Amino acid sequence: MQAAVIIKAVESSWHYAKGFLDIGRVSDYIPILAATDATQLGCAVMTPDGSCHKFGNADALFSMQSISKVISLMYALKILGREKVFAKVGAEPTGDPYNCLIKLETAGEKPFNPFINAGAITVTSLLAENAQLADIMQFCHKVFGGEVAVDEDVYAQEKRAGKRNWSMAYLMSSKGALGEDVEDYLNLYFRLCAVNVNAVNLAHMGAMLAGGGKSPTTGEEIVPPWVITTTKAIMLTCGMYDGSGDFAVSAGLPAKSGIGGGIVATGGTLGLGTFGPALDSKGNSVGGIKFMSKISEQLGLSVFSC
Amino acid sequence: MQAAVIIKAVESSWHYAKGFLDIGRVSDYIPILAATDATQLGCAVMTPDGSCHKFGNADALFSMQSISKVISLMYALKILGREKVFAKVGAEPTGDPYNCLIKLETAGEKPFNPFINAGAITVTSLLAENAQLADIMQFCHKVFGGEVAVDEDVYAQEKRAGKRNWSMAYLMSSKGALGEDVEDYLNLYFRLCAVNVNAVNLAHMGAMLAGGGKSPTTGEEIVPPWVITTTKAIMLTCGMYDGSGDFAVSAGLPAKSGIGGGIVATGGTLGLGTFGPALDSKGNSVGGIKFMSKISEQLGLSVFSC
Amino acid sequence: MQAAVIIKAVESSWHYAKGFLDIGRVSDYIPILAATDATQLGCAVMTPDGSCHKFGNADALFSMQSISKVISLMYALKILGREKVFAKVGAEPTGDPYNCLIKLETAGEKPFNPFINAGAITVTSLLAENAQLADIMQFCHKVFGGEVAVDEDVYAQEKRAGKRNWSMAYLMSSKGALGEDVEDYLNLYFRLCAVNVNAVNLAHMGAMLAGGGKSPTTGEEIVPPWVITTTKAIMLTCGMYDGSGDFAVSAGLPAKSGIGGGIVATGGTLGLGTFGPALDSKGNSVGGIKFMSKISEQLGLSVFSC
Amino acid sequence: MQAAVIIKAVESSWHYAKGFLDIGRVSDYIPILAATDATQLGCAVMTPDGSCHKFGNADALFSMQSISKVISLMYALKILGREKVFAKVGAEPTGDPYNCLIKLETAGEKPFNPFINAGAITVTSLLAENAQLADIMQFCHKVFGGEVAVDEDVYAQEKRAGKRNWSMAYLMSSKGALGEDVEDYLNLYFRLCAVNVNAVNLAHMGAMLAGGGKSPTTGEEIVPPWVITTTKAIMLTCGMYDGSGDFAVSAGLPAKSGIGGGIVATGGTLGLGTFGPALDSKGNSVGGIKFMSKISEQLGLSVFSC
Repeated sequence: MQAAVIIKAVESSWHYAKGFLDIGRVSDYIPILAATDATQLGCAVMTPDGSCHKFGNADALFSMQSISKVISLMYALKILGREKVFAKVGAEPTGDPYNCLIKLETAGEKPFNPFINAGAITVTSLLAENAQLADIMQFCHKVFGGEVAVDEDVYAQEKRAGKRNWSMAYLMSSKGALGEDVEDYLNLYFRLCAVNVNAVNLAHMGAMLAGGGKSPTTGEEIVPPWVITTTKAIMLTCGMYDGSGDFAVSAGLPAKSGIGGGIVATGGTLGLGTFGPALDSKGNSVGGIKFMSKISEQLGLSVFSC
Repeated sequence: MQAAVIIKAVESSWHYAKGFLDIGRVSDYIPILAATDATQLGCAVMTPDGSCHKFGNADALFSMQSISKVISLMYALKILGREKVFAKVGAEPTGDPYNCLIKLETAGEKPFNPFINAGAITVTSLLAENAQLADIMQFCHKVFGGEVAVDEDVYAQEKRAGKRNWSMAYLMSSKGALGEDVEDYLNLYFRLCAVNVNAVNLAHMGAMLAGGGKSPTTGEEIVPPWVITTTKAIMLTCGMYDGSGDFAVSAGLPAKSGIGGGIVATGGTLGLGTFGPALDSKGNSVGGIKFMSKISEQLGLSVFSC
Repeated sequence: MQAAVIIKAVESSWHYAKGFLDIGRVSDYIPILAATDATQLGCAVMTPDGSCHKFGNADALFSMQSISKVISLMYALKILGREKVFAKVGAEPTGDPYNCLIKLETAGEKPFNPFINAGAITVTSLLAENAQLADIMQFCHKVFGGEVAVDEDVYAQEKRAGKRNWSMAYLMSSKGALGEDVEDYLNLYFRLCAVNVNAVNLAHMGAMLAGGGKSPTTGEEIVPPWVITTTKAIMLTCGMYDGSGDFAVSAGLPAKSGIGGGIVATGGTLGLGTFGPALDSKGNSVGGIKFMSKISEQLGLSVFSC
Repeated sequence: MQAAVIIKAVESSWHYAKGFLDIGRVSDYIPILAATDATQLGCAVMTPDGSCHKFGNADALFSMQSISKVISLMYALKILGREKVFAKVGAEPTGDPYNCLIKLETAGEKPFNPFINAGAITVTSLLAENAQLADIMQFCHKVFGGEVAVDEDVYAQEKRAGKRNWSMAYLMSSKGALGEDVEDYLNLYFRLCAVNVNAVNLAHMGAMLAGGGKSPTTGEEIVPPWVITTTKAIMLTCGMYDGSGDFAVSAGLPAKSGIGGGIVATGGTLGLGTFGPALDSKGNSVGGIKFMSKISEQLGLSVFSC
């Protein structure tokens, strides 16, 4: 694909998406998110050679939030293997909001998938018990193509506001689906949610997913290909909360959103990253979804395209 | 892809899958299904030129059951358009068993997707109100690459045994999510479930999905490409009941199963059809899933492969 | 208790209750109910000697609706015995609306109690299989102290509008909690709901409950005492839908309401009957509840009074 | 009622109940409960003059567990009044197990009643914010007719094992149904659960309930009559977990059980207390239920008796 074609697609898709921002609203879950400028939209696309085409607020930093669930899943798969991870968490979409407790009560002990909060907390507990924070951050640097850091204010606010996560973790621990050190798991969980990234970081991550686990900038194999195949499958079926099905129809890309406004996606050989803090009712970035759907259509990126 | 490679993959995957049949058991929902020989396994793969490579019980007839949900969805999209169909049914996976009523009670009026029973009954109601049975059967002939017919015994047994479907339909009608003619809708629904096909028919259907809606044997455009893109996306996220996520990870193919033992799938340019009446606990063909996963791996068919 | 005291309490409680009618609204479930005059309030109290003190629209006829659930339970207990009835239905309050399907899906096969629709349909199925309509109507005449009849228009409208009951019945039948003749059961169920009574009939029924099963007017033992003890216990815990707990606190009387606007209750040696078609959000008569609570307080009728 | 009649009834009911103990099993929730001797059964009945008739292990100490919910409710009603308490908690039975989270997710913010854990934690939060522990313990001494104390080992074990309570409390706090000081509320909740009592203490409490709030031994009015009327109504509809309806039918007594094996009840002018640590599947004392049902039948104590 020629650079000029991509650049034009990024620009026109950005302009198209920009027109929908007023449908959404920023998350008011914590003060820092509530104070975010809802009119921002940044988009970045990275090619296999590491070139990045960006538009709008592509350098603005924001907390990655649920995109950390992909990081945790990949790192857990890498260091623990498929079997140990999927002994603790499933790979099924749920149709429920990301923070719903009902299936935990009614449908067995294992959370449905690693991208709902319950499942992500479970995966995080595996990391807490088997890895050091420094190593996970090192992994983040590689995935994002540069240094990233925890925003300590976001972390503190998340920890205080995240009572529903405390509730889930204690419920799972009471059922034996989670270990005893609930506070440790949640501290790590909230910490990873609070890592600041920008759209270019997400495009780098997307390009790594497109490249079978190799860094588009350094060429290093960050995770083996089977981790990527597994991760992309779960991203497509579960990555956009209970809007995953609609996104599969409209964009057809493995993707993951966060309530900080980010979306990471991969299509063909490209990595895509967006930042648009105005969210729809399911917690997905309005501008990000519109951008992803439009550029997927323009460049024929959907895995379901004919 | 060379024919020899495909033939070898079909054969070895069939042999591999054959070894798992004793894990499963035939559906005992209706007497005809309960009496099916559980040791059968038939597999067929069709290339874009209409050539078919098959192995085992690929010519055995069986009722397509839930595979009719794909037929109904494609035909409804074709004759009514995207908007009218998705006004009545969503495109979200649920994580619930296919015949669960809970989300109908708790999560709004629109069934989650066209491949759970509630959603399929809704789509069927649109057909009942806007199409003739003869036209739908004509559509079936094209999709399956040959004449197919309703098995009247299966139809009669389904109608009597399908009380949970009656329950769902009345519940939806009570909420206004379905029209008044509940009996008409269900008669058509049960009739389409009772259409007999074989694995070769399913491979033809799969090849049509691979070919963007064109018949691999006649070249006729049976449905337009956007119908295929939409249908494949929903097949991947929702096609294997509450085992769809696992199948996305293991095989990565848009697919749809039926409790008669059939699975239709599409991978790359190929159409795949299997018949294996021994089912797992979620209602999916044990042999079919093993065959699809193995041949996907051997030929690199997964949409998530690196 | 002197007649003058009772008469004064009926009158003052009626006046008190009358002031709350505009909080409620008539059921719009079927046209006949929707057309009822919401300003009506009739109250009747019968003493053990069969004397009746009434006020307001105590002679107005209305369909007994869910009060039929008490009739069916008592008659089933009388002709089949405790064991056969409670093999099919429990005696636990649910906290759910009367027509909710969720517990049927999640909490085992037996409906929770005979006064939610699912449980009442189950009890009715026992009657349909073991009794004649003529005998049940004969039982009604005795309980109500006079001839009562099915309102055929109400019956026809109920049968058409009651899709949620059809849904429940098919769901239970699919689980084996109900027999095969779903249509027969529902016909009888709808027919009994459609029997017309007035507040005096209900006061007679209440006096029979107070009198351990003996008719206050004829002295005949209509049902044995153990049927009354059992029935009153279930009335107190389950008789006012998911408002039963509040009514136990405010009035403390075994009672049963119907969406036609009736309430039957028993307190001390008295039978109480009210008709007030303006309903609250749970389907209970606003005026009836206020009357019952007030007169219970004035005459010290609560089973929990000190 | 003559003392000889009561004594005979206590003795024969104790003998009757003793024969059912092997149906049950002790709670294994915490080590101390798990180590309890399941063959114990102690029963005590107190008359309005404070005389106590007891049999078996009526002096054995055990933690009152959920019986503390009645204490908390009465004390909260006494010091805060009806309105403030019922603004935070309902009075409806649920049909769910005592520690179920589903209705908290699906049915609004207010817990259904003060005798499920969610509701009791809510009531306890009102105490934590409006009372001192010393005052609550003082109230306990009066209710139980003697000094009682927290078992610090039970408290420590409860606090560690009660993860599901932590989960509920955080869930309610996340919804605004509970304040911010989750840890304070739970500490008080667990502490009150861990107060040791014996069957005689419970009989004293029951006699106070029978006497409209007056201590049978000192004559002091511990709570006003309206608190008793309210409390007895909720005990009858909600006091025996999701076995409350069955107990209303079989015994017909306002009662409350705890998983430590205790049951307090009131019937006519009598107070009844039992200790039998072998529990049924719903968490109620097997021996206690059998004793209560038998003595209720023998002495005609049921509020529903004819």
